Amino acid sequence: MKSQFIVVEGLEGAGKSTAIQAIVETLHDFGIDQITRTREPGGTVLAEKMRELVKQEHEGEVLQDMTELLLMYAARVQLVENVIKPALEQGNWVVGDRHDMSSQAYQGGGRQISRQTMQSLKQTTLGDFKPDLTLYLDIDPKVGLERARGRGELDRIEKMDISFFERTRARYLEIANADDSVIVVNADQTIDKVALDIKSALLLWLKKCAG
Amino acid sequence: MKSQFIVVEGLEGAGKSTAIQAIVETLHDFGIDQITRTREPGGTVLAEKMRELVKQEHEGEVLQDMTELLLMYAARVQLVENVIKPALEQGNWVVGDRHDMSSQAYQGGGRQISRQTMQSLKQTTLGDFKPDLTLYLDIDPKVGLERARGRGELDRIEKMDISFFERTRARYLEIANADDSVIVVNADQTIDKVALDIKSALLLWLKKCAG
Repeated sequence: MKSQFIVVEGLEGAGKSTAIQAIVETLHDFGIDQITRTREPGGTVLAEKMRELVKQEHEGEVLQDMTELLLMYAARVQLVENVIKPALEQGNWVVGDRHDMSSQAYQGGGRQISRQTMQSLKQTTLGDFKPDLTLYLDIDPKVGLERARGRGELDRIEKMDISFFERTRARYLEIANADDSVIVVNADQTIDKVALDIKSALLLWLKKCAG
Repeated sequence: MKSQFIVVEGLEGAGKSTAIQAIVETLHDFGIDQITRTREPGGTVLAEKMRELVKQEHEGEVLQDMTELLLMYAARVQLVENVIKPALEQGNWVVGDRHDMSSQAYQGGGRQISRQTMQSLKQTTLGDFKPDLTLYLDIDPKVGLERARGRGELDRIEKMDISFFERTRARYLEIANADDSVIVVNADQTIDKVALDIKSALLLWLKKCAG
């Protein structure tokens, strides 16, 4: 079975870490042991430095929406070309904590950067490269942010207004509904139930892939 | 007279610092004292951090050409929106050490990123914003690099092969010949002569602008 690129997406507090754990366990159960895990933005020395630029405050300087978007794609290109593609070519499966759908949802939906710009930048930088499967953990931002706040300090993006996250969620759902490679998981359940849903959805997909 | 954005462009060792000095002096002579100086990539707290990402080595990690290009535009957007446009709006003149023409020449010409990609990224990020005047210091890369090497350690870009700089120069000249707002200055002369050429070209332009 060809190695695949599986991504977990969702708002803050949707339970991405638990989901990734469930995915890795399911892959192991299925006999897949060569797994490369990535996170975005980040995942390489350089991309992690870009992550810091995006996440932190810089002496009060306004980070322009377009700059943020370009940094996200700069980090993504670096990760895709230096880590994800080589891993897949070597037969590793790749499990990603966020990928391009995050930019579409947060910068496109949340920050309201035009669809044309989003599409043009994606095409220019990634071409036709995309995940084989995306598990989108859907949650009401009020619930997700409450969970995320419980974990400690919020970063620059997590401090945004609730309407920002509502627009982000709406764009997530819009993309999920239009793309067969995205499975929507109800993340407003207990952690155990979410993990179980992910495992069964993934197993079904793996069997279809293998078959 | 409306404030203007003047840029100096050219290969390593073309004499950009001397040129900028000559421009600032000429503006002063012309009665223009409110001058904002910029450099690219850089010129803001965040953009300077991106400059470091582009210029330095990072534990041997390959910086992808597309990542470099996106970082250049991320830094440029940050500088244009946070520094250049506000300065011009406040009536300051802006004198820039490099701007978009550098990306067109180095990443487009030197690194051979497609014209379509270059055009698309420029349009997406800058729209119609461009310098009012660009002084391009034209020099044979062999001569320029020899001068630059005399100044000390070379950065990641300055270590490129001579053919890289020849392609960069060719693209510089191509753009200069097609754009009326670019003046080509012969930089293969003594520093004093180059400065003199710049002063007279700029004075002529200022008189035309004012008239």
